[in-house]
Amino acid sequence: MEQLTVVKIGGNVTDEPNALSGFLQRFAALPGYKILVHGGGKTTTALCKRLNLPQTMIEGRRLTTPETLDVAIMVYAGLVNKKIVSGLQNAGCDAIGLSGADAAVIKSTRRCRIPIDYGWVGDIEPSSVSTTRLSQLLGLGLTPVLCAITQSEGGLLNTNADTVASMLAIALCQQYEVQLMYCFEKKGVLSDPSNDESVIDLLTQAMVTDLRAKGAVQGGMIPKLDAAFRTLSSGVSSVRICHAQNILEEKKGTILAHA
Amino acid sequence: MEQLTVVKIGGNVTDEPNALSGFLQRFAALPGYKILVHGGGKTTTALCKRLNLPQTMIEGRRLTTPETLDVAIMVYAGLVNKKIVSGLQNAGCDAIGLSGADAAVIKSTRRCRIPIDYGWVGDIEPSSVSTTRLSQLLGLGLTPVLCAITQSEGGLLNTNADTVASMLAIALCQQYEVQLMYCFEKKGVLSDPSNDESVIDLLTQAMVTDLRAKGAVQGGMIPKLDAAFRTLSSGVSSVRICHAQNILEEKKGTILAHA
Repeated sequence: MEQLTVVKIGGNVTDEPNALSGFLQRFAALPGYKILVHGGGKTTTALCKRLNLPQTMIEGRRLTTPETLDVAIMVYAGLVNKKIVSGLQNAGCDAIGLSGADAAVIKSTRRCRIPIDYGWVGDIEPSSVSTTRLSQLLGLGLTPVLCAITQSEGGLLNTNADTVASMLAIALCQQYEVQLMYCFEKKGVLSDPSNDESVIDLLTQAMVTDLRAKGAVQGGMIPKLDAAFRTLSSGVSSVRICHAQNILEEKKGTILAHA
Repeated sequence: MEQLTVVKIGGNVTDEPNALSGFLQRFAALPGYKILVHGGGKTTTALCKRLNLPQTMIEGRRLTTPETLDVAIMVYAGLVNKKIVSGLQNAGCDAIGLSGADAAVIKSTRRCRIPIDYGWVGDIEPSSVSTTRLSQLLGLGLTPVLCAITQSEGGLLNTNADTVASMLAIALCQQYEVQLMYCFEKKGVLSDPSNDESVIDLLTQAMVTDLRAKGAVQGGMIPKLDAAFRTLSSGVSSVRICHAQNILEEKKGTILAHA
C-alpha cells in the first residue's frame, strides 16, 4: 500500500501568520500523498466578538447558532482555508481546499439535541468520508486541505477538526498506509503541564488513564487523545502528537502506542 | 467537441436565499458539463459595514484594502461559495467550490497601481486559467463553482466575477463548445431601463454603442457587455444575458450577435 500522511493543525498555529507560514513550508516538504485538516477557532471567536454575537458555552463546548455557523463557514472554509491553500501553492504544493460539501467528501448528521442541544453541529463516522473522491484528487497530484465544515441533508454543519482528521485517517487506511499527526503549539503530550519540556515519548491508553487521574491531561487534550487512540485501534499505522515545527522530524513529539 | 455551459450569477441573486435556492435547482437541472461563477458583493459590503471598515470608491470601483480583501475572501470563498455548493449537492449536483488558488485554477497578477491604485485586485487573461485542472475535475463528474478570488505570487487577490466567467469561457473553448450565460435579476439587456419588459432579443456591438450614447446602457452593464462581446469574438459559441429564473429557457433574455 502507498503511504499517506494526514496532518491536523490547530488554531494556535493557523491563526498566527508567522507560525503558519513556517508550518506551510514544512508541510509542502513532506514526501508522498498528504492531506491537511485545520481548525481556526481563535479567529472565529474574535470575529464573533467584533460582530457582537454572544458565545454560549455548554460544558466547555461552544453552542453553534445559525449566526455563529455563518461565521465559522466564513472563517474556516473562507479565510483560513484559502490562506493555507494560497500559501501552499506558493510553496510549491498543489493544494485544493475542501469543506465536507465540496465533492461531498464528508457527510454528517446533525448531533442529537438530547440531552444537550449544541446547535448546528455535525457528527461523522469513518463511513461519512468519500474515500473514492479523496483518492481521485490525490491521484491527480493534488493535496486536499480540509476545513471542519461538513455537509448534511439540512445544509452545512460545524464539526470538530480533531474528529475530522481522525475519521479521515480511519477511512483512508483501507487504501493507504496512513500516518496521522496532530500538530499544535506544544512539543507533545506533557507529563507536567507546567513544564513544556516534559514530553512523553511513547504514550499508551493506560498511561492516559493515569495522567487524567492526576489532572496532567485535561481540557481539549482529552477528546484529542480519545480520537487519537481510536484511530490507532482502527488500522492507522502511526499517530504522533507534536509541535507544528517538528512535522518533518519523525522522532519528535509523543508517539501513541498500543497496549 | 463536447458542450460546456459557463454560468455567471450576480450578487442580487446569491445574496437572496429564496432566489438562490430556486436558481440552484434550475442550475442542477442543466444538462452536460457546466461551471458556475458567482459574485457576492452585497453581502461583502454589508459585512464591511458591520465591521466598521470604510468603503472607498474610486471612479465607481471599490478600493480593496488588506482588510476588505479578508472580508471578500470570507464572503466569496467561504459563506457564498459553500452555501452554493451545499445547496447544489442537496439538489443532486456534485459541485466542488474553488477559488483561483485551489488546484491553481486561476492565477492573476496584481493590477498596475498607475494611474489608479485599486489595492489588492488581480487581473487575469484566458492564459491565467488552468484548463487542464478544470477538465480533469469535469471528467470526474464534478461541477466547479468558482468565486472571484484569484491566486498571485503575492497571495490572494480580489477579481471581477464577470471577467472570471469571460476568461474561463474563452480559455475552455479550445476544448469544449462553450455557451456562456450572465444571469441576474433583470430579464435581459433593456432598451429602456425604466421598463423591465423592454428586453432586447438580439444585441450587436453596434447597438451597444448606440444604447451607450442614449444612456440606456450604463454603470455595471458597460464592463459586463464589453467582457461578453470579447468572449463572443474569441470563439465562445453563444453568449446570453438573462434572468436567473430563465437559464433553462434558451430563447429568453438577450442573445449577443456578431456584427
